[in-house]
Amino acid sequence: MTVESSAPAAGSLAALESLLPPPPLPLGSYVATTQVGNLIYTSGVLPMRDGKVAYTGALGVWDTTVEMGQEAAKLSIVNALSLIRHALGGDLSRINRIVKLTGFVSSAPGFYDQPAVINGASNFLLEHFGEAGRHVRSAVGVASLPANASVEIELIVELK
Amino acid sequence: MTVESSAPAAGSLAALESLLPPPPLPLGSYVATTQVGNLIYTSGVLPMRDGKVAYTGALGVWDTTVEMGQEAAKLSIVNALSLIRHALGGDLSRINRIVKLTGFVSSAPGFYDQPAVINGASNFLLEHFGEAGRHVRSAVGVASLPANASVEIELIVELK
Amino acid sequence: MTVESSAPAAGSLAALESLLPPPPLPLGSYVATTQVGNLIYTSGVLPMRDGKVAYTGALGVWDTTVEMGQEAAKLSIVNALSLIRHALGGDLSRINRIVKLTGFVSSAPGFYDQPAVINGASNFLLEHFGEAGRHVRSAVGVASLPANASVEIELIVELK
Repeated sequence: MTVESSAPAAGSLAALESLLPPPPLPLGSYVATTQVGNLIYTSGVLPMRDGKVAYTGALGVWDTTVEMGQEAAKLSIVNALSLIRHALGGDLSRINRIVKLTGFVSSAPGFYDQPAVINGASNFLLEHFGEAGRHVRSAVGVASLPANASVEIELIVELK
Repeated sequence: MTVESSAPAAGSLAALESLLPPPPLPLGSYVATTQVGNLIYTSGVLPMRDGKVAYTGALGVWDTTVEMGQEAAKLSIVNALSLIRHALGGDLSRINRIVKLTGFVSSAPGFYDQPAVINGASNFLLEHFGEAGRHVRSAVGVASLPANASVEIELIVELK
Repeated sequence: MTVESSAPAAGSLAALESLLPPPPLPLGSYVATTQVGNLIYTSGVLPMRDGKVAYTGALGVWDTTVEMGQEAAKLSIVNALSLIRHALGGDLSRINRIVKLTGFVSSAPGFYDQPAVINGASNFLLEHFGEAGRHVRSAVGVASLPANASVEIELIVELK
């Protein structure tokens, strides 16, 4: 029996399908995804739920926690994957692997745990895509994000 | 009669030509554009006019407005297109489409309208390139930018 | 005698080899580099030395200087090149050229010299790769970085 470690496990993908919401609408004059060659680029994606940003405020402020940031990162990646699924006509199995994730974390002065926050997105990718989910990434702390979102994420994905 | 919606309208391009200033000079040890395969990447481009940054200061501070931010974003994209035209030997018609725009907005705490600001650049692209101007983008609020610029923009463009 | 200006000088590369530390470990759930076609993308790289971030704090704060920032940028690029060398099985001569550098500079309000700081990395590339080291770049000032690092850098490199 041959295990192709670079392909997402079918079971995982099916599990993932059930988690994805409808694709969120862009907040400006742009499109959600674009394809160049066999790469899909996403726009910056916010932690939207039911048409609203579900996690707001800077990390490092008294009423936010790293755990909330991780939930925000996870919701952002779920939305990003929903946009990609939409671009692929519903067929996530066309993804060969996740190439790159950029994670912007709204950060108050003195907050330095951006990697822990963005792990909420990275771990979700590893869980659902296995080896094919291993990506490069940057995590940076920014002054503020659109609609006061706590996290914004962009992705580059390679298709088969 | 067939309309090819993915090609820039010739009229628009001519109009665009007349708007572009000479290409601005880089502020450091780098080049303005580079080509890999059929993609052109630009460096981060500031709202330069006559060799100086024309829009300074963080958005969300008392003496700045979203409208000024939009003008800064528009001037940045005009400069970016000028750099790309220079790289293409003056021939903007070699552009197949705009792939990706990243917009960094110098933002005071509490400013969350980065998408409205960066629309100043995105709308300019849509106006002049039509369907070929539809791009993915991220808009983020940063602590500060080179020379106290209000906006910095980078582009990825696909050639024919 | 023919000079191929687009290839790194062998002498320089040998000099570079001697400067590179062992590759630093990622701080989260991601990989350090990935290859797509003939491009290598790095993750965001910090100014690590002996497993610790060697330069911390925001630029523009009383006890930091632009010179320290430049050293931080140089150390970050040295680490990035170490990661790339590791990905290339130790053979840096497989690099065709440096395509793009993104430099995030932890910046206090009022600090606008991000280009001078990131020149610490850009100049290092030009010194060691010559023409092949000429890259596009963005330099932005961010609110904070992982582990309170002063600088974070990511690279895109083209292979032969």
